[in-house]
Amino acid sequence: MVADVQALTDNFKTPEKVSENVRGVVLDYLSVGLDPRLVTIFIQSQIPEIAELTIFYLNIVNVGKLEQNPTVKTELKQKNFGKEIPVGFLVYPVSQAADITSFEAELVPVGEDQLPMIELTRDIVKKFNTLYGKNTLTLPEAVLSNNQRLIGIDGKEKMSKSLNNAIYLSDTKDEVNKKVSKMYTDPNRIKTTDPGKVEGNPLFIYLDAFARDQQEVKDLKKRYRLGKVGDVEVKSFLAQNLNDFLNPIRMRRQEFAGDTKKINKIIRDGSDHARQIASSTLLKVKKAMKINYTF
Amino acid sequence: MVADVQALTDNFKTPEKVSENVRGVVLDYLSVGLDPRLVTIFIQSQIPEIAELTIFYLNIVNVGKLEQNPTVKTELKQKNFGKEIPVGFLVYPVSQAADITSFEAELVPVGEDQLPMIELTRDIVKKFNTLYGKNTLTLPEAVLSNNQRLIGIDGKEKMSKSLNNAIYLSDTKDEVNKKVSKMYTDPNRIKTTDPGKVEGNPLFIYLDAFARDQQEVKDLKKRYRLGKVGDVEVKSFLAQNLNDFLNPIRMRRQEFAGDTKKINKIIRDGSDHARQIASSTLLKVKKAMKINYTF
Repeated sequence: MVADVQALTDNFKTPEKVSENVRGVVLDYLSVGLDPRLVTIFIQSQIPEIAELTIFYLNIVNVGKLEQNPTVKTELKQKNFGKEIPVGFLVYPVSQAADITSFEAELVPVGEDQLPMIELTRDIVKKFNTLYGKNTLTLPEAVLSNNQRLIGIDGKEKMSKSLNNAIYLSDTKDEVNKKVSKMYTDPNRIKTTDPGKVEGNPLFIYLDAFARDQQEVKDLKKRYRLGKVGDVEVKSFLAQNLNDFLNPIRMRRQEFAGDTKKINKIIRDGSDHARQIASSTLLKVKKAMKINYTF
Repeated sequence: MVADVQALTDNFKTPEKVSENVRGVVLDYLSVGLDPRLVTIFIQSQIPEIAELTIFYLNIVNVGKLEQNPTVKTELKQKNFGKEIPVGFLVYPVSQAADITSFEAELVPVGEDQLPMIELTRDIVKKFNTLYGKNTLTLPEAVLSNNQRLIGIDGKEKMSKSLNNAIYLSDTKDEVNKKVSKMYTDPNRIKTTDPGKVEGNPLFIYLDAFARDQQEVKDLKKRYRLGKVGDVEVKSFLAQNLNDFLNPIRMRRQEFAGDTKKINKIIRDGSDHARQIASSTLLKVKKAMKINYTF
């Protein structure tokens, strides 16, 4: 799903940012290898059933539960809304529950910062099924990646577009080199010969995740701790590994990037298919709530 | 509009109450003389565009603004949610804004307790038009009735179904007589010969609103104040007047009540027509927000 409606909760003052990015996100999905013959790629705003389910779910969630959700709390701090919290932001976890349940998702791949969101969805599903009939909604489970979510290149919080501290799938080799060269490392290490800290150091966190040759990483860590390797060498090794990782992604992007017609068809077909499934879920929900009138 | 989705915010634990009442509300509308050839009668849940607009509007309303809305505050007190306020209840004024703006309403007939709601809708319209383009949404105005909203027959708050202190359009003559005979009057008047209080007395509030012969009401008030008329006589005069008022309504109800097919067709045609208008508003909104993609 390309979550354009949800993106508007952050960007309601600059909606053009959202619409400009929609095809870009689809291109990301295709570039990393999601195969539209196996995977349904669709745009959230094309599925009105999600909005309808959200409205129904809002009745069975309490305000306090949202305000106390750890993910909501953390993001509230990051976003500097001050006292002016948009209602759309507060209720977006409920619309996420609609995203997930619309498609009867059983597994939801997330970063561990999103676990409280999946917990909320599970609460909604359980409450809904208790109130309106068991097995109406599918109870999803979170799936975590083997790698932890990545820290930003500024060493702060998670990597994210809105915090502007991310390396993008669409970055060129030069952009990656430049970003890595500016990466936050061990702030207490002034000279190359100072012993450096590996733990919590973004360079090594990224190397753990992306380096093919983990023996080399082990060696670098050892030398870094002893003050026997410069940041420049570690960064160059990391940049090389990131670029190796990104190269096949860049090639697939190249394939699709020029073909707007093909991308449009993927979005159209995906959204049609998604809508069929969401309609059938909505019908089930309306039946369970006894508001599936026939006139 | 029959606001079934909104009714679920109060009745989410007993949705059958909502579905059972839908045709009854339409029957009320027809009974009081709304003519389906002139008026569009439709069911809220048949118009998914309202849910979509609600989701968009949630982004431009702050949580504090809802919590401080006088109507929301009053109703929160009435409904005894305690600490467990359903999000659906908190955000229902925003969904009302969607109800109103979906159909480009210019005038909205309301009781004065609902004025803060219309004010909120006006704020949403102004903010939306400022952010996304003037004249996208129509700015509505509230229209108050010449009569104030009626106090309940228990003398408390407003007359309302959920407070169970109302006389219904569908009440029979006997039911009206019974309800009026139990009505709350002047609690300090023990004997018929005690001078009674007219101001704030539900009996006289209703007589001001419904009695055809206001000269007779004037005379009754005078005698009531002097302790020269019993509650029974005033109540019987009121019941008579209420039944006179309700009789043509009852007759029209009779006409339609047996004809489910006709009512269904009115609902179907009305909802189809309403949906056309709401679709066109949603399209305008999406265009203004630049998320009216074509794929």
